[in-house]
Amino acid sequence: MPRSIVTLTSDFGLTDAYAGVMKGVILSINPEVDVVDITHDVRPYDLLEGALAISQTYRYFPPRTIHMVIVDPGVGSARRPLLVSAANQYFIAPDNGVLSLVYAREEDVTVRHITAAHYFLEPVSHTFHGRDIFAPTAGWLSRHVETEKFGDIVTDHVRFTFPQPKKVNERLLKGVVLRVDRFGNLMTNVTPADVPQLFGENPPAFKVIVGKTEITRMFTAYSQGAPGEVFAILGSSGYLEIVSYRASAAQTLTVGKGAEVGVVFA
Amino acid sequence: MPRSIVTLTSDFGLTDAYAGVMKGVILSINPEVDVVDITHDVRPYDLLEGALAISQTYRYFPPRTIHMVIVDPGVGSARRPLLVSAANQYFIAPDNGVLSLVYAREEDVTVRHITAAHYFLEPVSHTFHGRDIFAPTAGWLSRHVETEKFGDIVTDHVRFTFPQPKKVNERLLKGVVLRVDRFGNLMTNVTPADVPQLFGENPPAFKVIVGKTEITRMFTAYSQGAPGEVFAILGSSGYLEIVSYRASAAQTLTVGKGAEVGVVFA
Amino acid sequence: MPRSIVTLTSDFGLTDAYAGVMKGVILSINPEVDVVDITHDVRPYDLLEGALAISQTYRYFPPRTIHMVIVDPGVGSARRPLLVSAANQYFIAPDNGVLSLVYAREEDVTVRHITAAHYFLEPVSHTFHGRDIFAPTAGWLSRHVETEKFGDIVTDHVRFTFPQPKKVNERLLKGVVLRVDRFGNLMTNVTPADVPQLFGENPPAFKVIVGKTEITRMFTAYSQGAPGEVFAILGSSGYLEIVSYRASAAQTLTVGKGAEVGVVFA
Repeated sequence: MPRSIVTLTSDFGLTDAYAGVMKGVILSINPEVDVVDITHDVRPYDLLEGALAISQTYRYFPPRTIHMVIVDPGVGSARRPLLVSAANQYFIAPDNGVLSLVYAREEDVTVRHITAAHYFLEPVSHTFHGRDIFAPTAGWLSRHVETEKFGDIVTDHVRFTFPQPKKVNERLLKGVVLRVDRFGNLMTNVTPADVPQLFGENPPAFKVIVGKTEITRMFTAYSQGAPGEVFAILGSSGYLEIVSYRASAAQTLTVGKGAEVGVVFA
Repeated sequence: MPRSIVTLTSDFGLTDAYAGVMKGVILSINPEVDVVDITHDVRPYDLLEGALAISQTYRYFPPRTIHMVIVDPGVGSARRPLLVSAANQYFIAPDNGVLSLVYAREEDVTVRHITAAHYFLEPVSHTFHGRDIFAPTAGWLSRHVETEKFGDIVTDHVRFTFPQPKKVNERLLKGVVLRVDRFGNLMTNVTPADVPQLFGENPPAFKVIVGKTEITRMFTAYSQGAPGEVFAILGSSGYLEIVSYRASAAQTLTVGKGAEVGVVFA
Repeated sequence: MPRSIVTLTSDFGLTDAYAGVMKGVILSINPEVDVVDITHDVRPYDLLEGALAISQTYRYFPPRTIHMVIVDPGVGSARRPLLVSAANQYFIAPDNGVLSLVYAREEDVTVRHITAAHYFLEPVSHTFHGRDIFAPTAGWLSRHVETEKFGDIVTDHVRFTFPQPKKVNERLLKGVVLRVDRFGNLMTNVTPADVPQLFGENPPAFKVIVGKTEITRMFTAYSQGAPGEVFAILGSSGYLEIVSYRASAAQTLTVGKGAEVGVVFA
């Protein structure tokens, strides 16, 4: 049987001890597991950012990977801890919608309310379930404890809907900037499914309007842009992005997360 | 025999090559070891921060884990390299007090002065013992070389005492903010042992005074606080914390590390 | 056979999902591999910084280690993906010079153009070859696929020459600050080979001029400096460094990367 993998996505940062503590708990239960950091830099309490981070990565991991997604402002309240089976992988997270994009993309999803307290780290605190509930669940699951041992199936788990692009009319689609990456690329919520004509052969004339700028060119690679030019591209996560070659589109346009994006056809 | 684990706590950051170099040295000696980052973001030269980071995490790791704690402003001077056995684990660190909280908490501590130069990476530099002395010691120890092979026991190792809360009178205890975490929670040096009445059932009326603010409410979970409210909580590391729900207490109070904290009973 | 190791050096940061995605792809191909972060904090598109980061670390890793070095502004253009064998290790990187320091230091270097598309992640994007080409190559190589299976040998790979110190006359050498580390140490491009007399016994009187400051003292350990003193040292990577004890030379001198450094003999 191959080595078990546990990934970590959280808003804990790497300056405080929280991520290290979770690694210790997992390794104490299963010293053979491979713990892999996806990111701990989710903005504190930002469920949408956490949902986006895990949605962009889980599909690249092998079957049976266990993903802990700990963005948990409601820790210690009545919000439930969940163990989710989907896409032949596992997700361990608070029931606050941080797995919404997994629920939306996968057809066959089983959600369990983690209640098997004998797996927990006692005494369970009210402030750090990443350590006391989620990490022990990941550790025991990585040792092949069956999912049904952790708790019963629920169907009323929290889902939120992501900001969707809005078709204003045949000529105009309005979207939003979901995220600005380290390179200053603006990732929008617009996908090829929303504007198929834009990504087909011989696309019609179009404008992408962001802030005060009108973008009229789309390329397939960053290096096709002229120096200083801001243009559109289909990003590696499957969203329309506004980018620049060797430069930050966010800085050039002085535009950030949450900015409105219009796609206009002639 | 389970896989050996080496954890890293340092002030090297992850932008420079230093942490990567130490990982390479360890893996060259023992490719089977699991190297786990706790944090490399200790403030440069800050022994108290390093001591706090390792003290908050080591207990969660499995027996025989090897913890490297490299905050080492005195590298190349006469300060000794140490190998410490405590709590059924190992600690490798410079003799500058960075392990003081481990010494203080554990009853059975054996401290050795690492002198077995045949394990070192030659030539030993005067500027990077993390690479030349500490990482090789961790690598060979992870291959089950006995601790006595690395050097003799010493008893005059450097210990510093942490800022302790001071009982001014029966009604007033004075403490200090030890750390501000990524969420803006203020971790104080006050523990339940210092003010047991505060954490019992039916606690008496109290005020926690930080900066210009008087806090009169204590909860068990962040989510019990009203929006914008700053309140007290027993943090997950066992210290009294000043926090806010989904907000930064540090920002709300404009208070930081080192600020005085008063606990006053009526 | 010992466990395979893949190291990652990139300009992706750890806030975005890119590094996590590459880890997933590698582990999907070989769940037994150990993926080790060297750094993801190379400044975006900075080939010199990437070249420096890998050059400072690879020699400390065990034989057969696979180093991915993904600083790739030209992704999606005609620049070739490379698999390099050198120093009994492997390097996977775009053909843009980011491996120049490896080529310069190693005598026996074999460079292959990765063309074996059946190993790639399909469909190959034009924007993220770290995921679609480099990570799969690392994964399969870690499973001991022979290097010749990935593509043919080339000899016209891109090399750039690093800024070299210039001997102006017998008394003056001019160098440059290559990097400022987390401690504010200024790493120059001057090595003992450039000024052997400076590092011998009984060095002659000298001045190191940086910004408006003349430095006349060289020590072997940081702790030999007086408080506030800025002095020279032979750094752990083999370059002349301008440093201060428990303080940032960069801040004291208000000097940064790219600053000119003069070494003057009487």
